[in-house]
Amino acid sequence: MKTEQLEIDQNKIKQAYDNLDDKTRSALEHSYNRIRAYQEQIKIQYVSNHQGECYEIHHPIERVGIYVPGGKASYSSTVLMIATLAQVAGVKEITVVTPPQTNGICQEVLAACHITGVNHVYQMGGAQSIAALAYGTESISKVDKIVGPRNQFVYGQVCIDQIAGPTEIALIIDETADLEAITYDVFAQAEHDEMACTYVISEHEQILKRLEIMIQDQLQYVERQDIVSTSIAKHHYLILVEDIEEACLVMNTIAPEHASIQTKLPEVYVDKVKYVGALFLRYYSPEVIGGYVAGPSHVLPTNQTARFTNGLSVNDFMTRHSVIHLSQQTFNEVAQSAEHIAHIELYIIMKSRSIYVDKEGIG
Amino acid sequence: MKTEQLEIDQNKIKQAYDNLDDKTRSALEHSYNRIRAYQEQIKIQYVSNHQGECYEIHHPIERVGIYVPGGKASYSSTVLMIATLAQVAGVKEITVVTPPQTNGICQEVLAACHITGVNHVYQMGGAQSIAALAYGTESISKVDKIVGPRNQFVYGQVCIDQIAGPTEIALIIDETADLEAITYDVFAQAEHDEMACTYVISEHEQILKRLEIMIQDQLQYVERQDIVSTSIAKHHYLILVEDIEEACLVMNTIAPEHASIQTKLPEVYVDKVKYVGALFLRYYSPEVIGGYVAGPSHVLPTNQTARFTNGLSVNDFMTRHSVIHLSQQTFNEVAQSAEHIAHIELYIIMKSRSIYVDKEGIG
Repeated sequence: MKTEQLEIDQNKIKQAYDNLDDKTRSALEHSYNRIRAYQEQIKIQYVSNHQGECYEIHHPIERVGIYVPGGKASYSSTVLMIATLAQVAGVKEITVVTPPQTNGICQEVLAACHITGVNHVYQMGGAQSIAALAYGTESISKVDKIVGPRNQFVYGQVCIDQIAGPTEIALIIDETADLEAITYDVFAQAEHDEMACTYVISEHEQILKRLEIMIQDQLQYVERQDIVSTSIAKHHYLILVEDIEEACLVMNTIAPEHASIQTKLPEVYVDKVKYVGALFLRYYSPEVIGGYVAGPSHVLPTNQTARFTNGLSVNDFMTRHSVIHLSQQTFNEVAQSAEHIAHIELYIIMKSRSIYVDKEGIG
Repeated sequence: MKTEQLEIDQNKIKQAYDNLDDKTRSALEHSYNRIRAYQEQIKIQYVSNHQGECYEIHHPIERVGIYVPGGKASYSSTVLMIATLAQVAGVKEITVVTPPQTNGICQEVLAACHITGVNHVYQMGGAQSIAALAYGTESISKVDKIVGPRNQFVYGQVCIDQIAGPTEIALIIDETADLEAITYDVFAQAEHDEMACTYVISEHEQILKRLEIMIQDQLQYVERQDIVSTSIAKHHYLILVEDIEEACLVMNTIAPEHASIQTKLPEVYVDKVKYVGALFLRYYSPEVIGGYVAGPSHVLPTNQTARFTNGLSVNDFMTRHSVIHLSQQTFNEVAQSAEHIAHIELYIIMKSRSIYVDKEGIG
């Protein structure tokens, strides 16, 4: 296959955007604008004042690759939720790879690439596309980081995507929760995958019992019933707790991708629910909104990894390093300590310093 | 081996600190205080104001394991350079594992554990100690993240240490550089390992030639001569460039663990040298100081990984997540866009939202 066929022409990308119907354009741009605003809000600011003897500097990663899944569905939201972050970070070259469908690449995906300023779109999928991005080919430039619809990690040649676990939600509810809404929050996760895990935590036994009945009742009306039923049968848990403290302890142990608190005063939980991918508070923040237009990225850690990692953000497209610029006085102060520690560590790399020390007369 | 033997008693740890001679205590505390001050300076502040409809929250990781190498040398500086960061982050439980030597664990390592508030010290090494930390045993608690003397990455059960590459330094020099000092900066890296890489970049051919002669001259006087000679012969490069721009381009391509700029006006490089582990400016900031007491951690990315990752910092011991707490009005605004994007993505998880939408009468 020739390069011309692999890479989508920029005009075609622009055309896909121009051809959008008003409703779709408006929805995608609404989502884009909210994601952009949120990421700008949480971006770590580096003020280039070069002050002090030790300070930290941030730079955007130069080249980023984004894997957008193809298959049955189109994932314009994946483009928005990842490429916007790279764009806000200031990444110089954003490359999207995505497997074509029978009629090529979905127009909404291309339109989302246009909106987010993606520089290259290649129609290719599978492990070979990741290899091409990681090592570069004649026609495709090597990138520094590859991100997919789940979290990413750092390894060897390039940053690559973490192995994604099944999706998860854990909800804390009380008597103020709308059980019909909770039922559909559970179904919305369960329908993703037979392996999807759903947990509902409450201090109120009666509420859990009523929810259980409602879930069983509603199961017969749900779409994708085979998947939802299997997921509910195998990976759905109702958890009765003593109090708020225990509810938060359970939540932090599950460390779910999505956490939702639908109680009278969700604020009391906010500082205690520590290890979750994203936290949705109350009735007007259903998790499904997070997947599309709330603002934060829907690329979130699964399988308890929220205990040590986090959802994708603009700051994952930045590197940082320290700058050390000591004065002569500070050098004199620290040189002796450094030399002594080096000495007790049996290293001889202080040799170079002995020159300095001699020159400064403090050796 | 019984637990009592595996874990070092807290009294013994305190005793190791109490028994330090004044010079060593002073050196270790000097280093600790500088590391602590720097990490407090760069720690991302989370202000718990719970403002806005979307915001980000940071929490310390709960339990961290630190692998401190044993072998011929003792590594009190490794403890200081990692445990201090975890302590500043607010990690609840810090566990150190380190292989004992014939006479047990080095007293300076134990003293550094005392200074940095380490909660548990186990005398064990090798892969089995990492496994014990990752999965937990009867006597050792599972941790959430394991950090060693190199960088770390996130994978599966726990965060573990990245495979360390050989150490590296790249220096940019001009006619104001002290070539004897540069020579020893090169030797200080080269003596670590036959694989250590050293690069010197300059616009001035004559300076590079003079440096080359000096390095060859001084080689005969250096300690660990066999290692230094092999490293210099195989992995030492003198690079002539046209101008500052090219020097920075070369530096960003090498993306070395340590970068040093020893020129008249190093400030002009600071915003252009983007991808390095740590950047040392001028004569009074030799890289070796960074390893001990400058402030930033000496746990730095090697092998070009500075292009997408960074040296260890307090912020690597924190997790973050977003909180989404939409008002009814915002919900109404975003629900239609979310529903439409879900629709074009062929998902049916908007089912739950249709309840909300119906209730709000905007469906």
